[in-house]
Amino acid sequence: MATLNLPAIDPASVAEQRTTSYPEPFRARVAGRSKRKLGDACGLTRFGVNLVTLAPGGESALRHWHTLEDEFVYVLSGEVVLVTDAGMQTLTAGMCAGYPAGKRDAHHFVNRGTAPATYLEVGNRTDGDNAFYPDDDLLWCEDENGVYAAHKDGRRY
Amino acid sequence: MATLNLPAIDPASVAEQRTTSYPEPFRARVAGRSKRKLGDACGLTRFGVNLVTLAPGGESALRHWHTLEDEFVYVLSGEVVLVTDAGMQTLTAGMCAGYPAGKRDAHHFVNRGTAPATYLEVGNRTDGDNAFYPDDDLLWCEDENGVYAAHKDGRRY
Repeated sequence: MATLNLPAIDPASVAEQRTTSYPEPFRARVAGRSKRKLGDACGLTRFGVNLVTLAPGGESALRHWHTLEDEFVYVLSGEVVLVTDAGMQTLTAGMCAGYPAGKRDAHHFVNRGTAPATYLEVGNRTDGDNAFYPDDDLLWCEDENGVYAAHKDGRRY
Repeated sequence: MATLNLPAIDPASVAEQRTTSYPEPFRARVAGRSKRKLGDACGLTRFGVNLVTLAPGGESALRHWHTLEDEFVYVLSGEVVLVTDAGMQTLTAGMCAGYPAGKRDAHHFVNRGTAPATYLEVGNRTDGDNAFYPDDDLLWCEDENGVYAAHKDGRRY
């Protein structure tokens, strides 16, 4: 395979990242998740596109919904369980899901299998977007210095 | 495979579309392209996600660049040739490309092989976006009634 030049990239050339902005005790739940930020690598700013590898037992995120961000996921390999308010559905390679901004149906993927799963995730970037977590004691609060993680009663993490 | 319910979908359940807003004589060049509008099927509005099948000989679009739309493409199967101002690169399954809004490097895919290729394409939706076509006698012009296709000298198609 010849080396690709921008605007094309081989995802294998993009570093894998395991960062999360979640406070403890939530970090361990997404420790099985690594992301290659493909959109950023191409210089895109209006939306993000990540190639995610989810290890067995890993969660894509805490189950959440966004106020101003549409999200879309397309499964490339392996098998993931999509959890929403309606329950669980298993998605295999070639299946997808989309979460419209403002729809209060929290969602995430869990890998309940024994092999890694990979998927693409897409989300638009919009100032003022927020996310809510019905299953967990987590809120993002904002004061004049910016956004911080808080318990649902308002105490800071 | 069990039937999926929203927010998940099986792309096979989404109708294939072959529409184009290009005037003649350009339509034949994208006749080999069919799209399943996955983002729309999920109710997304902030960006589009299409699963595209490109037949041998087909073009993804006339070579173009957008003023306000980031675009991203991820090849799922087969092989396509990416054409930009810098020349041609061949992309196979698992390769991708991203085109930042406002970057004046026109791009498209051509299927020069003997088998269909499939890819995902993503683009944000932004009022006032326009596209330019360096290789073809095509412009989108706007008057008080909206947008129309014109020759580069301004005459309407």
